[in-house]
Formats: sequence, C-alpha cells, structure tokens
Amino acid sequence: MRVANQYFRTIWVDDENLPDVHIIDQRFLPHQFKVEIISTYKQMAIAIKEMHLRGAGLIGVAGAFGVYLAYRDALTSNQTVNFVQKAISEILSTRPTAVNLKWAIGIVASKTDGNLTLEEKTRIALETAKRLADSDAENCRLIGENGLPLIEAISRNKKGDAVNILTHCNAGWLAFTDYGSALSPIYLAHRKGIKMHVWVDETRPRNQGAALTAWELLNEGVPHTLIADNTGGHLMQNGMVDLVITGADRITANGDTANKIGTYLKALAAHDNGIPFYVAAPSSTFDFSLDSGMGKIPIEERAANEVRYVSGLYNGHLVDVLICPDNTPAVNYGFDVTPARLIAGFITEKGIVNPNSYAISNLLH
Amino acid sequence: MRVANQYFRTIWVDDENLPDVHIIDQRFLPHQFKVEIISTYKQMAIAIKEMHLRGAGLIGVAGAFGVYLAYRDALTSNQTVNFVQKAISEILSTRPTAVNLKWAIGIVASKTDGNLTLEEKTRIALETAKRLADSDAENCRLIGENGLPLIEAISRNKKGDAVNILTHCNAGWLAFTDYGSALSPIYLAHRKGIKMHVWVDETRPRNQGAALTAWELLNEGVPHTLIADNTGGHLMQNGMVDLVITGADRITANGDTANKIGTYLKALAAHDNGIPFYVAAPSSTFDFSLDSGMGKIPIEERAANEVRYVSGLYNGHLVDVLICPDNTPAVNYGFDVTPARLIAGFITEKGIVNPNSYAISNLLH
Repeated sequence: MRVANQYFRTIWVDDENLPDVHIIDQRFLPHQFKVEIISTYKQMAIAIKEMHLRGAGLIGVAGAFGVYLAYRDALTSNQTVNFVQKAISEILSTRPTAVNLKWAIGIVASKTDGNLTLEEKTRIALETAKRLADSDAENCRLIGENGLPLIEAISRNKKGDAVNILTHCNAGWLAFTDYGSALSPIYLAHRKGIKMHVWVDETRPRNQGAALTAWELLNEGVPHTLIADNTGGHLMQNGMVDLVITGADRITANGDTANKIGTYLKALAAHDNGIPFYVAAPSSTFDFSLDSGMGKIPIEERAANEVRYVSGLYNGHLVDVLICPDNTPAVNYGFDVTPARLIAGFITEKGIVNPNSYAISNLLH
Repeated sequence: MRVANQYFRTIWVDDENLPDVHIIDQRFLPHQFKVEIISTYKQMAIAIKEMHLRGAGLIGVAGAFGVYLAYRDALTSNQTVNFVQKAISEILSTRPTAVNLKWAIGIVASKTDGNLTLEEKTRIALETAKRLADSDAENCRLIGENGLPLIEAISRNKKGDAVNILTHCNAGWLAFTDYGSALSPIYLAHRKGIKMHVWVDETRPRNQGAALTAWELLNEGVPHTLIADNTGGHLMQNGMVDLVITGADRITANGDTANKIGTYLKALAAHDNGIPFYVAAPSSTFDFSLDSGMGKIPIEERAANEVRYVSGLYNGHLVDVLICPDNTPAVNYGFDVTPARLIAGFITEKGIVNPNSYAISNLLH
C-alpha cells in the first residue's frame, strides 16, 4: 500500500540470513510514520499486546514471526524447545479475541513439529511466517475482488452517484499485511474509478478509525468524512449510507461475529434501516470450534485508562489528555459480538458467504 | 445540587435591583469549577451557542434570562422594543434542536407583550425568567418522584442487588436548573438507599458524559463506570444493563424523540435485548406542532473541529488534541431522532406517559 506514494507492507523481513522483523509502529500514526525493528519474541509479544501493531490478520502474521523469533532466541542463547513452547504460550495470551493469532501460530507450530534441529526449525518457522504474510496479502486482494461487485451494483443503481460506505475501526491494510479486509473492495473500486465516499467511525477508545482508516483513505485518495461513533444511526436513518462493511476478529460456525466494540450497534442500525451490513474477513477468521458466538468468544478487557484518556497531537507532540474527573472508574471491553441475523454476508477470499452454518461450512470448512 | 457539599443551581441571580445573571461555565468541568457573570443578552447568546451552558431545560431558562437582559440592555442604552425583537431572534437561533428554548422565550415574550414601559417589561421578564428557573427545578424533582418507582421495582426484582442503569450524554442537574431529568430518579433512589450502578456513556464528540455526568455522580456519591459510546450494546447483550434512561431535546406529538447523537443506537440495542428504554423530560420538551420527528425536527450541525479534536487535561491545563490527520474532513450532527416504537415511556413531571399520540395528548396537551 502507498504511504506518500512509496510501497509498504505492515510487516516485513530483509532478504538476509535469519533477519530481524520490521513493523510499522502504528501507535504514532497518523502524526508520525515510524518503523520498529523487532529482534526477540519478547519484543514481538509486547508489540502485539501494547498494539504497536493490531488488526486481525496482522496479529496472526506477527504471531507467526514471533514464533520464528522465539526459535532464533533459543538458537542464539542455547535454549531448548521448552523455551519456545513457553514463548508460544506467552504470544498466544497477548490478545484473546482474534482467532487469527491462534490459527497462524498453530500453523508455524505444526510445521516445526518433529525430529528437526533447532536451526532447521528456526528456518522453517521463518519461511512459514513469510509465506503466511504473502498469503494474508493475497487473500485480502481476493476479498477486494469478491467485494467489488457489491459496490459496482450500488453504483449502477445510483447511476454513478457516489456510493456511501460506512466502516468501523480499521480493517484496512494496516490491519493485515496489505490491502485490508473491509477497505480492500473500496480500494479496488476506487482504482476502477467508481465514485465513493466513506464514513469513518472514529472508533473510541483507541480511535483507530480517526487515526488509521482516515490516514489510509487520505493516502489512497478516497473521499471520506470522519464521524463520532454516535453518528452512524442518524446517517442511516437519513439515507446517507448505502452499505456498511466492517472487518472481524473471530467468526463462529453459525456466523456470529466478534469485531471492534460498537460494531453490533452499527449492525442494528443498518438492519433497522434496510441497509446491507457486510463483514469482510479471510477464512482464517472463522472458528469452527465454536458453534455460536454470544457468551462463547472471549472478549478482551483492556486498560481503563484507554477510556479515561484520549491520545492526540498537541503543540507537535503526542500527548494523552484526561477527559473525566481524576478518580472516575472506567471499563474497556475491546470487542462485541454481532449476531449472524444482522449480517448480509461475509466477503472472503473464496467468495461471498451467506451468514448461516450450512453456507459457511460448505465454502470454508 | 451538591458541589463539594455546597448547594448550587446552574443559573441564578442575586437578590438585587435588575441583577446580572450567574451561570456555571460548564466548559471547564470536571477539571475546574468556574462561575461566569453574564451582563448582556449578547453574552448570553454566546454562552448558549458556545455551550458555556447546555442541556434542554437549562437552555430554555438561560434563553428567558437572555430576554430579560435584552430588555435591560435596551433600557440602559435607550433602545426601542425593536432592539429586543432582534435580540430574541438572535437568542432563538443559537440552538435549533431543543424546543425548550423556543418555549421559554415564547413565555417571556408573551408576558412582556402589550402596553407597558420598557422598565416594566424588564422587571416582568426578570420575574418570569426566575419563575421559569424555579419551575424547571420543581418539574425535575417531580420527574425524579415519578421515575423512582421504576427503579424501585427493578431493585425488588433483583432482591436488592444493584440496579444497572445506562445513560447517554448529560441529562443531570447541569442540564436543568437543578435535579436533572434522566438523573433525577437516580438521585432520589440513591437518597432512599436503593443500590444502583450507572453506566456513563462518554458521549462524543463533546464528552458531556465523561466530563459532566461522571462529575455529578461523583459529587452525589452514586456508583458509576465510564464507558466508550461503543460499549452499551455489549453490556446489554450480556445482562449488565437493567434500564436505560436518557433525556430529550424535543419530543413530537407521536413520541419521536430528538436527543444527543447516539441515543438512537442505544435505543435499538435496548429494544434488541428487551431492556426498558425510558426518556425523562419535562412536558415543555413536547412539540405539538410536529406530528412526527423523522426528517422534521431540525438537527443542529456543529463545528467539525469538535470531532477532529478532543478536549482534556494535560499537565494541569485544558488542551485540545488532534486525533486524525491534519486535513481530515469531519461532520458533526448534534442530535438524532429515536422513533417512538423503541421507547418504553416518557417520565414527565405529570407522570409516566406511554409513547403514543393519544396518551401524550391526553396527559400533556
């Protein structure tokens, strides 16, 4: 994806022997573009937990690179495989809701299982992580291609007038290796010259919409408007939204979808106003071990200070401002579950899937 | 209401001849408690428009005092009644959505109509504004008494366990002369010893929940937790909310209710989860000139920078931080309309009213 017209991925390694891992440190966006070099699995676990990077797909790829770094740590400090096992548990525990982390780490773990030297395992882990990074980007590109006809159809119905799309949080290229999930069809449609306008939910408490989605759309030249999270219902009631597309952190076998807190509220509003609400996600986001989502998908609870404070630019510096009395208690659930009944369909790399167990199982399982 | 155990109203005049008007300047809360002295109608128009004070009831009372100040301005600068007419139009235009402003100014205007000297009109305007301030407080106290049985009934059903109440924005005493609308039943229940816990929506973009409601509840000693506006749906899905109470800025003859942007989303979630959603408001909030609300109640659009920036405390100072790229466009609708079908009832000073034209007209018209 383009940053000031230069091509970037969100995570990469240089072409050298057992390299360090590079990531875009998203905590400073949109105000500063910083690359962080990750040299140990511990640094990667911190980067995931403290959200130097975030987003369903990217967390998975970062976890895979984390396992590679754990093997490299073991190799360079003469540790045993036991050390790697503990490291994997530590990485797995950083973000409980997104299933992609578990999925990607599971793939690296299975590829490095068996009677191999530590060096061989390190190399296999690296190759597997690189392959997962590539396939994450390719899956997102395919999500774009599969979602594109939805936007084209609305554009035709509106006789070429701008298609108004609302999105929540950031499910763009910053949430994956490249392209993104919810934003991928938008980018592909934009490149085809389809007129669009995106409503960007700011997405409190961490404002990934205001900080990341607005920044991506700016770099890509897609017209957009930032709104408070409270605003989407009003826009939908007044005919100002044609389509809602969000990402997902975990989708259960029946189609219940965990995504950034507040997604459920937008799905309710879309349903109440007859507006199609689509979830875009690679098939790795589906968790077939859960038959439904409500009360079953673990919901991450993050620090209360993310609610009590807001981060932003003041006098050229990033600062946190307190928005409530000193001693006000707060709670910070990171995700909510949107029931399948509110979802029009899932845009995946394999096609668009209806929100029911049969269709999901047929196409993806 | 109590501020650090001292009794305050949000607006008052000292007992002297044609006095200035005192208001709590809410822009600095919760971090600083400041009183502003308003000496001209222009200052009052600015105070209303720039939200030194806000809230449906308080805007009305402030508008009434504004008309008094316009008469006083005319008296002291030898202007004619024509000057006052222009001043009234100016005050009326400050906030288009709340009907209380129109209602209160209309009362002062009708009382000062006719063949009276400018000095007589000034005195009558002052007395009328003082009476409206008193009756605003008394109506809010009655709203508390009429809403109290709803909380008591849930408390009994829960065998004394804390009643979890969610509220949006600030419909507390800071939004009226005293007591508040949505918070009044909560204060009365708290004084009766009923166990409660209030979920406080932060209410972006201006964060009246985080800044004002949390501060009121702290001063009153009512247990509460601050949440991002995105959170309420998740709480309702998980049995963590027993009751929703919000205020209102305008209610049409059929029960459609304009209130702070985002109210509609919470009403949808309450409806989806079988949780009673009540609107608390004095009967002056009903606008019988509109038969329904959707597309008919004017929705105030405020400055985009209220979305692009967040105000808070940093290093002991109130500052505004930018949360998006420099050049991101934003839009800022102040209110949305919740359809009557999502509302369980209206808690008014005259009793609880069902959300239909017949019941509303019977009790209130």
